[in-house]
Amino acid sequence: MPIEPFEDQPFFRRAINRMQGYAPGEWPELDAGVIKLNSNENPYPPSPQVLQALTQITPECLRRYPDPLATSFRHTVSTTFDISPESVIVGNGSDDLLTLLVRACAEGTRQIAYPMPTYVLYRTLAAIQDAKIAEIPYLKKVDEWHLPIHQLLTEQAAITFVATPNSPTGHVVPMADLRRLAQGLSGVLVIDEAYVDFAGDNADRASIALVREFENVLLLRTVSKGYALAGLRLGFGIAQPTLLSGLLKVKDSYNVDAITLTLGAAAIQDRAYKQKIVRQVVEAREQLATALRELGFWVGRSQTNFLLAQPPGNTPKETSQTLYKNLKKQQIMIRYFSQPGLDNKLRITVGTPTQNQRMINAIKQCLLNE
Amino acid sequence: MPIEPFEDQPFFRRAINRMQGYAPGEWPELDAGVIKLNSNENPYPPSPQVLQALTQITPECLRRYPDPLATSFRHTVSTTFDISPESVIVGNGSDDLLTLLVRACAEGTRQIAYPMPTYVLYRTLAAIQDAKIAEIPYLKKVDEWHLPIHQLLTEQAAITFVATPNSPTGHVVPMADLRRLAQGLSGVLVIDEAYVDFAGDNADRASIALVREFENVLLLRTVSKGYALAGLRLGFGIAQPTLLSGLLKVKDSYNVDAITLTLGAAAIQDRAYKQKIVRQVVEAREQLATALRELGFWVGRSQTNFLLAQPPGNTPKETSQTLYKNLKKQQIMIRYFSQPGLDNKLRITVGTPTQNQRMINAIKQCLLNE
Repeated sequence: MPIEPFEDQPFFRRAINRMQGYAPGEWPELDAGVIKLNSNENPYPPSPQVLQALTQITPECLRRYPDPLATSFRHTVSTTFDISPESVIVGNGSDDLLTLLVRACAEGTRQIAYPMPTYVLYRTLAAIQDAKIAEIPYLKKVDEWHLPIHQLLTEQAAITFVATPNSPTGHVVPMADLRRLAQGLSGVLVIDEAYVDFAGDNADRASIALVREFENVLLLRTVSKGYALAGLRLGFGIAQPTLLSGLLKVKDSYNVDAITLTLGAAAIQDRAYKQKIVRQVVEAREQLATALRELGFWVGRSQTNFLLAQPPGNTPKETSQTLYKNLKKQQIMIRYFSQPGLDNKLRITVGTPTQNQRMINAIKQCLLNE
Repeated sequence: MPIEPFEDQPFFRRAINRMQGYAPGEWPELDAGVIKLNSNENPYPPSPQVLQALTQITPECLRRYPDPLATSFRHTVSTTFDISPESVIVGNGSDDLLTLLVRACAEGTRQIAYPMPTYVLYRTLAAIQDAKIAEIPYLKKVDEWHLPIHQLLTEQAAITFVATPNSPTGHVVPMADLRRLAQGLSGVLVIDEAYVDFAGDNADRASIALVREFENVLLLRTVSKGYALAGLRLGFGIAQPTLLSGLLKVKDSYNVDAITLTLGAAAIQDRAYKQKIVRQVVEAREQLATALRELGFWVGRSQTNFLLAQPPGNTPKETSQTLYKNLKKQQIMIRYFSQPGLDNKLRITVGTPTQNQRMINAIKQCLLNE
């Protein structure tokens, strides 16, 4: 279903007519032949506890509306992360929570700021809401990405988004930088931790302290990445009740379904399993980075389940495009972004060691044929 | 998690600070003792085909993102209702589609109009979007609700919502009235058919003709009511691709999860089962209406799975409140709306014959004690 540009379509608000929709990673049919490394899914299956919970779903659970307050799931999060249930909100994926926040806080000159490059959806949500956008480039020093703190503080946006670990760069923003932002901003600081599970065994508990300390901090989490449940659509936000109050006004009553709440709770409770598959991904990531570097790629240091990599040679942009297309023909899908600054690189999700090896072989072959 | 009125909270847009959140029907814990007749759920379980589909969910289906275009589900809808897949959009419940439409089309003087009384969420969504609202009372003649067509046409709103069958009145808006509106409006006409399955065996196919005829008509459907799948969160919209194009720009890429898409398709394909349970509900509805009338209630004619009923006596408002509270103490939940024009009535979901009888007995007892 391609999105046609009906630019003068009077049905829609001007902001909608002017904008492009967000383009998700391509989605091939389920097929054993495809190696899908374009959407940062976890290559391992979810916890056996999740599959066990699936067998317990009753007709009654399907027939009735789900709990609009997600009480049971929120208590699970509360216990796991040692915060009050009143500090937890659930979303239909963390994208739903990003949307709620933008609708609650931004419009016109109540602007949205974020460092670049980062998650492309922030821009899309700002465009839908017709809110002013301040995109501040990351300060790049050799291989390090430094948060442009001063400029973000100068903007004093209604919402400042910081993804950490960040996509597509893979780097982690130091806690001290986040604290400085939280302290200096009067608007909301969103710390989008979709990939936090790959940043160390207990990284997912480290930033909770910021929520206790600052009324304007919203942490966002998802079960899509570390917990291998992208098919479910479940995210959760952690913030003080004052900040959540506005989001709750905007939230759809039944935004998360009954099966998802049950399976999500089972996933979060099985912390040992999550840590096991995450360690496997981290190990495979380092092997993959080494293999790419041996082929002459520049590979950014990553604390996520993907790598940002620039092909060797004098024409990395053309080589990136060629590799993307060539691998796609072989049913190996990786991500290419055509935007400036990224268009000479590829974002490659870490697969299983076997998948990674097949991809490396395909890349090697392609580079030889150039 | 009560929603506190932080009226001067600078985090939020002014529209958010001024508004109240939407209050869903109360949600008791799953408990065999409770009779829940407050949220218009179907009293019967979903199709056995749905439960069969649930057993086929694989770890791979949970691990991967769902199809952002919901291709397979949209084809099922296409086949069932004889329209092109390009005319179908999916939502995380039909409430999600209402939200998308409001975000795509309304703001400020791009206003929202609807006849009153109707589904309360329209007002909430307009308030969040800070769009002007025109609430036009239904023209009431004896027991008939007549659509205020002329006034709705005069408003020429960016979005006109008509729920049919309507909640909480239970009446159906004639197709001729809908056609006149579609023809005379330059903005979008939303025909919200959440309850259409209870309006006759093939009522769900009748209004499709309006979509073929008019570019500005959006039909909304849900699997929550007729298909007994309120726990799932799945709605779908039917409209011409021009109208869907704006909604697709606003839609979250992965707004419906993989399990929901699979189970939803199974439900829609088992049309015979849906018609069977719907007929049981319709039969129980007529019996319940008779029983309430025998107790002296005024009961509106309903083509839904609920009844709007006014208690006997000179103080129906007080009696309604007493009945609501008294039944709640006995774990029988029905809906009371405190808004003018409805505050002397009760909205009662049709349960199984056994549940309805228990409720009738409780009402009888309560009226005797008055």
